[in-house]
Amino acid sequence: MARILTGIQSSGIPHLGNILGAMQPAIALSKQAGNDSIFFIADLHSLTTLKDAATRKQNTYGTLAAWVALGFDYHNNILFKQSDNTQVAELTWYLSCFTPFPMLSNANSFKDKSENLSDVNAGLFTYPVLMAADILLYDVNIVPVGKDQQQHLEMTRDMARTFNNKYGELLVIPEAKISEDVMTIPGTDGRKMSKSYGNTINIFLNEKELKKQVMSIVTDDTPLELPKNPDTCNVFSLYKLVADQVGINAMRHNYLGGNYGYGHAKLVLLEVLLSKYANERKTFNDLMNNTAQLDTIALLGAQKAKAISTPILAKVRTALGF
Amino acid sequence: MARILTGIQSSGIPHLGNILGAMQPAIALSKQAGNDSIFFIADLHSLTTLKDAATRKQNTYGTLAAWVALGFDYHNNILFKQSDNTQVAELTWYLSCFTPFPMLSNANSFKDKSENLSDVNAGLFTYPVLMAADILLYDVNIVPVGKDQQQHLEMTRDMARTFNNKYGELLVIPEAKISEDVMTIPGTDGRKMSKSYGNTINIFLNEKELKKQVMSIVTDDTPLELPKNPDTCNVFSLYKLVADQVGINAMRHNYLGGNYGYGHAKLVLLEVLLSKYANERKTFNDLMNNTAQLDTIALLGAQKAKAISTPILAKVRTALGF
Repeated sequence: MARILTGIQSSGIPHLGNILGAMQPAIALSKQAGNDSIFFIADLHSLTTLKDAATRKQNTYGTLAAWVALGFDYHNNILFKQSDNTQVAELTWYLSCFTPFPMLSNANSFKDKSENLSDVNAGLFTYPVLMAADILLYDVNIVPVGKDQQQHLEMTRDMARTFNNKYGELLVIPEAKISEDVMTIPGTDGRKMSKSYGNTINIFLNEKELKKQVMSIVTDDTPLELPKNPDTCNVFSLYKLVADQVGINAMRHNYLGGNYGYGHAKLVLLEVLLSKYANERKTFNDLMNNTAQLDTIALLGAQKAKAISTPILAKVRTALGF
Repeated sequence: MARILTGIQSSGIPHLGNILGAMQPAIALSKQAGNDSIFFIADLHSLTTLKDAATRKQNTYGTLAAWVALGFDYHNNILFKQSDNTQVAELTWYLSCFTPFPMLSNANSFKDKSENLSDVNAGLFTYPVLMAADILLYDVNIVPVGKDQQQHLEMTRDMARTFNNKYGELLVIPEAKISEDVMTIPGTDGRKMSKSYGNTINIFLNEKELKKQVMSIVTDDTPLELPKNPDTCNVFSLYKLVADQVGINAMRHNYLGGNYGYGHAKLVLLEVLLSKYANERKTFNDLMNNTAQLDTIALLGAQKAKAISTPILAKVRTALGF
């Protein structure tokens, strides 16, 4: 059995780009037979860049609710908040004493951040050690990572090997599963959908606000009566990703036929979003109106996480003479 | 009431220099009315430079036994092992996100260590953050520090102020109590007594080994029959620190009178060490032969430490939105 660990940024309520590009593939992977998935919301990591407590709380709830609403099976897997199992901070200290200082100085992510952020704090610097602790605390076999995280996973492997060379084979050396081609989801302006571009579609918004986002999709100025090219249109690009084949064929036909306006296409897209994600929207809103239930879900996950990590950390402590 | 925190290095069984220069003054301070003392053995810090588990365990027991043997009142104060309250690692992560990276880069201790040690690990770099967490976790008012630690205490105050500016007056800002003139205890070769010079007198050794150390004290080659200068003699320097006034006067008289050999003086010094520290030696050895009792003492301390730190950490977590 392979244990797969996925860290989830808690940077706010996931948008359609997150959902199609990352969350649904991750949920599909977690459903494969023989896999045992641990998902955690990396709220401790968020402190490196986000200092506002209310935002962190809201983002964490939103992230948690979205994963549950999208069907992550937290009963048969583990879904927890990083800050609910603080054993990770203890392991971080131990690992930091086996992490060469220059290894962290040379991390690409730190170089990027220290050039671009005004708040260059020590947490940003030691972040790869916390990430290593996230992984090594749970005897993880496989970590799906983007290419930008590949270096951090190499560091994790280095730390684990250094530790094992000294104290015996205590830590499981994780393997990276590099996601080669993460599906790029276009935003309302045609660029990659991203919170930082302000071009997102947020399926968990109420209908009025979601409509506003959909109606804001950028289109060209081809007059209503003329045929339109579906393959260069942002509305059609998004529609293709969420509609069924019958719908896609029909809309392509309408585009090519003329006398079919972008406004009309947008309303059809909105309709599909609302119906396709009706259950998810309901579950999400129910959970966000009942954060006590989210707390219960998170706590259940933390208990299961601790049941795995406690004996692993105990072995580490014994090896180190604590 | 002032709460005083003292971190104790766990670098081995304390020698006479540690005892006279640091431990007895600290114990005297802890006995002053109105003070509430927390002493902890900094075994988590030791991991930055010491990787061997058996040595760490033995050093930690030895340190703990020595403090108890020398009369630290752990019933009315707190004496615990840092690794027994790992909440400090959690607070370390939080504080690291409020610690400017350049502040750590500029720490003198890191510059020294990174020039002189072969193992320059990340723990050495973030060490001042762990030290800050040690202090801020317990609402400490006063921290007795040597001049070499003054910069670290300033960092601690900076971190606490940054945190309080954002989240309200949650953390107590500690004051340094700089020990101006730490008594310098001469070693067997006349230089400052220090483990690294190999010139220590270890009063907790068995009699035979202690005698060997005392007999190895370096003296000049003045012949037996001639008068000797007590004020330039290493034996007399040490004797002065442990003997009573009658004994000191007698030995001075013998030195000046001639026909009094250094070997004789050494045996008198040994005699005083054995009688002066007879109770301490017995208690120390009893404890080292009964490490379960040391574990019980440490555990009691950790429980009292956690009773203080748990609500403080909870306030911090709430402020940060965890």
